[in-house]
This record gives sequence, C-alpha cells and structure tokens, in this order.
Amino acid sequence: MEHSHKPIVGITMGDPVGVGPELVCRALASPELYRFCRPVVFGDAGVLAAAQKIAACGREIAEIQDPEAASCGPERINVLSISRLKPGEFRWAQPSSATGQAMIDYITAGIDQALEGTIAALATGPINKTAMKMAGSPFHGHTELLAHRSSAAGYAMMMAGPRLRVVPATIHVPIQKVPQLIDKDLLLSTLEIMDHGLKERFGIRRPRIAVAGLNPHAGESGMFGDEETAVIEPAVSCAVNAGLDVVGPLPPDTLFYYAVDGPWGASLCMYHDQGLIPFKMIHFSDGVNTTLGLPIIRTSVDHGTAYDIAGTGKADAGSFIAAIRMAAFQAENRRAAENERA
Amino acid sequence: MEHSHKPIVGITMGDPVGVGPELVCRALASPELYRFCRPVVFGDAGVLAAAQKIAACGREIAEIQDPEAASCGPERINVLSISRLKPGEFRWAQPSSATGQAMIDYITAGIDQALEGTIAALATGPINKTAMKMAGSPFHGHTELLAHRSSAAGYAMMMAGPRLRVVPATIHVPIQKVPQLIDKDLLLSTLEIMDHGLKERFGIRRPRIAVAGLNPHAGESGMFGDEETAVIEPAVSCAVNAGLDVVGPLPPDTLFYYAVDGPWGASLCMYHDQGLIPFKMIHFSDGVNTTLGLPIIRTSVDHGTAYDIAGTGKADAGSFIAAIRMAAFQAENRRAAENERA
Repeated sequence: MEHSHKPIVGITMGDPVGVGPELVCRALASPELYRFCRPVVFGDAGVLAAAQKIAACGREIAEIQDPEAASCGPERINVLSISRLKPGEFRWAQPSSATGQAMIDYITAGIDQALEGTIAALATGPINKTAMKMAGSPFHGHTELLAHRSSAAGYAMMMAGPRLRVVPATIHVPIQKVPQLIDKDLLLSTLEIMDHGLKERFGIRRPRIAVAGLNPHAGESGMFGDEETAVIEPAVSCAVNAGLDVVGPLPPDTLFYYAVDGPWGASLCMYHDQGLIPFKMIHFSDGVNTTLGLPIIRTSVDHGTAYDIAGTGKADAGSFIAAIRMAAFQAENRRAAENERA
Repeated sequence: MEHSHKPIVGITMGDPVGVGPELVCRALASPELYRFCRPVVFGDAGVLAAAQKIAACGREIAEIQDPEAASCGPERINVLSISRLKPGEFRWAQPSSATGQAMIDYITAGIDQALEGTIAALATGPINKTAMKMAGSPFHGHTELLAHRSSAAGYAMMMAGPRLRVVPATIHVPIQKVPQLIDKDLLLSTLEIMDHGLKERFGIRRPRIAVAGLNPHAGESGMFGDEETAVIEPAVSCAVNAGLDVVGPLPPDTLFYYAVDGPWGASLCMYHDQGLIPFKMIHFSDGVNTTLGLPIIRTSVDHGTAYDIAGTGKADAGSFIAAIRMAAFQAENRRAAENERA
C-alpha cells in the first residue's frame, strides 16, 4: 500500500495526567503500526515530550498543523498540539479543570476532523470522569460526547477482538434495572446498528448475529422469567422480518462458548457483565471498545487512566495498539464499501 | 492402591429413556476409571443390556446384591437392579410414570447406601423434570430430593473442573428476582459451605474464596447499584471475622479471567449465568456439578437427558466420566480428612 493510501488515524492523547501520553508514545514507537495507517495525535506536544522520557522510546515529537502533513514512519510522533499545558500545570495523577478541559478539547477536535474527513478514523485514549466533571462538561464520558457532537441518531458499544465481538444492550446500570430497560425498540435498533456496523466497518457481507436471553437457560419456556417471550423474541422476529440474519434468544451459558471463533459476527447481550465476562476471558489485554452507529469511526482503549501507575512507564500499550489497528481496519473496510457503492 | 481401598462410587443410571444408560455403559468401559474407584450402578439390568448394544462396548452386565460385591475391572458392569422395566415399558425418549418412578428409586437407593456408608460417594446420571412430575414426585430435581432425604441443613451447587470452580448463590430464578434473593445470611451460609467443602472434599487446607459483585464494576462505589455495599460487603466481612479467607466483592468482568488457574479455591457468584458463562467457556465438556453441604458426596453430569439423541449412541460420556472421577477424588479427600481427625 502506498503511504498516501494508508488511512490517517487520529489518536486522542486522553487525560494528560493519566497513562494516555506514555501509551501514545509507546504505541507509536511500534513500526508495525505504520504498515496499516498514518497516525496523528490530538494532544499536547509538551506533555508528550515529558511522557516520551518515561516511555523511553527515543522518538521526536513533531508538531504539525494539518493531519495531511503526518509523516509515515515511527521515527517521529506527529502531534496536533491542541493544548499547551505548562510544566507546572500537569502532574501525573493530579487532574485539574485545565487538564480536564484539554482532554475534552482533543476529543472535540478529533471528532470535527473526522466529520470533515481529514482523518479517516479516531482512536481515543483513556479519560477520567472526575476530570471531565472538573472541566464542567455535561457528558458522563466519551460516548455521550461523541454522539452529541457528531449528531448520531443512535449508537452501540461493541467490545471487539479477533475471536469474539459483543454488544451489551444496557451498560452501566444496576442489574436490578436491566429487565425494565431492555425493550423491543432498543433491541431492534441495536441489532440494526450492529448489522450495519459489521457490514460497513468489519467487511462482513452478510453478518449473522446471536442474541442472548436475559434469564438462566433463556427463561426455559417462561419458567425463569418472561423477558424472552415478551421482549427478546419479538425483537428478533422483527429483525428477521426486516431481512437481518439474527438468531435467539439463546441460553447465555452456552452462547459464548459457541461464539468464540464461532459462526456469528457478534453477539447482542442484555447487560454489561453478560458480554464483558466472556469477552475479558478471551481478550483481556487486546480487547478494543468501538462505537457503532456514529457517522465517524471510533475505537478506544478498554481501560482507564490508571492514575496509580501514571508516569511510571509500567502501563501496557497492547489495548491502545489494538485500538489504533482496528481504527485503521474499519477505515479500510468503510472505504472499500464506499468504493463499491460508487 | 489395593482394590479394596479404592472408594466404591455409586452411579445412578438416570432417566431410563434418556442418554443415561448408554453413557453409563460407555463411561464404565473406560479402563482408566478403575484406577480410581470401584463403580456400581443403581439402575436396571435390562435397560443397561439394551443400552450396552447401543454403546457397543462389549461389557457383561452383572447383577450384584451388595456394593461390596462389585468387581474391580472394566470387563463387567456391576448393577444393583433397582427397577426391572420390561422391554415394552421403556422406549427411548418416551417418559412414563413407570420410568419416572424407576429413575427416582435409583436416586433414593443411592442416597440411602451413601448415608449407610456402603458406597463412598454418589455420581448421578441425567434425569428429566417432566418424568419426575409424571411419577408424582414433589421435588423439582435431584438437589431438592438429595437435600430432603439426607436431612441436609443447607447446600450449595458447585460447578467444578480442573481450572475453575464456581458456586452460584441463586440458581434457576429470573434475573429480575436476583437482587431481592441475595441476602447476607444466604451469602454467609454459602461461604461456610464452600469453605468446608473445599477443605474436606477438595483437600485444600486453607481455601481462599473470591466473591463477585452483582452489578457492573461491582457497583463502582454505589454508582451502579447498592447491593455490594448493603449486602455483599457485610457478608464478606462476617465471613472474614469468622476466620474464612474471602475477598470481594470483585468486579465480575475481570474476576473470572483471574480465577481460571488462579489463586482462589472457588468463586461465589450472585446468579446462574455469572458463574455458568465463564465456567462453560472453560469446562464445556468436562464440567462436573457437585452438591456441597450434604452429608454425602454427590457429583452429577452437567447435562440433561438429551431425548433428541437418546438411543442413538451419539451422546458424549466426557462429563459422566469426569463426574465419577470427581466423586472418587472427593471420597479420597474426605477419607484423608477423617483419618487426620482420628
């Protein structure tokens, strides 16, 4: 692939006082990455210079003004320096309103450039909810901010790895609230987002999707709960009638055994741990969080800011590298799909 | 080990018209089993003779009157013929009140002999809830019958394999009811049963037990549910104060990654799929269901009667063999613990 044809992947540096900056340096020192993409960081040149010493990768931090100016090899780390925090303004593991605002600014700049098409995809570094609040942001996290700023009609969080992909229909809510939150419309719209995402971003021509039940044995004909018959089965029927290739509700305790390296493009789960327990067993250190349904491609590390080890150089860049690779992969698939339609 | 020192393991044949009889024949044809135990079947000599043809293992079906008369090698299958169903009375996959009653009689005979000490442990074959009802039994399944007839004060279902052991605190109930069912007393008594069982039946001198949270991220300090702070943490504290080595509540999505081949003797789970999803990913075909807290040792296959393939010879004996081996293993550990106390 010629350099100019490789997708430009925007990488937000994440919380300046977390492990994001050192992980960016370490990830972008990996020569392998440049076979797939031209990475450009949305961050802070000064913070990266400090993180570079910690990561000890010996790369030049090169400020650029335009993603197109990004170089194509690992000798330089190309940065759009969105913030210019002074040395006294950032200390590892000490968030402030200034670092929180900087972190948000990287994301909004990345979203805007992705919407304009100057970058092909966005891989986001770890942020901190407390820092987000300190900056006065009305959003709880990345996904809400992304959805709002890109005017997405709906979205779904997918955890993806080479052997398993799961999408939880409900996420950070108590188990107690899950039964009342899963309704037919939510499941159907999530299935449609999954189907579209698997086609356009994973290059699967005719994706098959498995749907988990909510209850043990998927309710065993209503003996252990009626959400399967009242909600999940009707949603699956609607999806099938709309032309999607969907099966379920399946008993959760065997679904994921079959799903690993299995016949389905992804599995729709009813709650966070139903999907995340099997996912983390398989993809503990190379899992990627990707948001489907947005007009832009977005992947993310699947861990947090890890303040406890920020600045120590101990953080593992595996998930960040996987997120950048998957962003490039999705960008390639999307370009191929657009070329096919054209 | 001398033959006379090997534990005698009683094996209930299970539903006469399910896959139990053919699996018994296949499992007991495995010469390896006789290195660990002397197996004796509680079943029906005529049904086993028919199943023997299906399993095609070429073993003699030998009726005995007393477990002590069981031979020690795979050339004969030793049977206490509790029922004598006539050829017209059993057809594969066609349960009746007679086959249902026979199935129950194997279990009650097995329990009684285990209580008397004429067998060291009981490994139970698959039964069918519908057949149980047809026979007019007031019990929903094995475990209730076992607990009642052995006058157990409390019990816990453990799913066990070489790499992972899990105990769900609640089992066949809708997810919706789980939050109200887990209370401090239930968790504490289950932890005590687990601690005792791991010591006496698994030979772990000082068992460590992990406890899962109920909610995503174990509630993340109450942000996604309060069962962790209101119920699970107090139960763990009580257990620790009582001298048990218990940690938790831990975030469910990472607990099981660490639990596989990990530091804990077992993990206490809040609901069926929280334990069974990770368990079946690791021990899909060699998992054993064992009941802790009973005065007798009891293991079980972790699958059902599989009427759809009963009589075809297709059923896999892996789980049954694992259940018999684990029954023998627990019997050895229990004997060692008793010798130590004596």
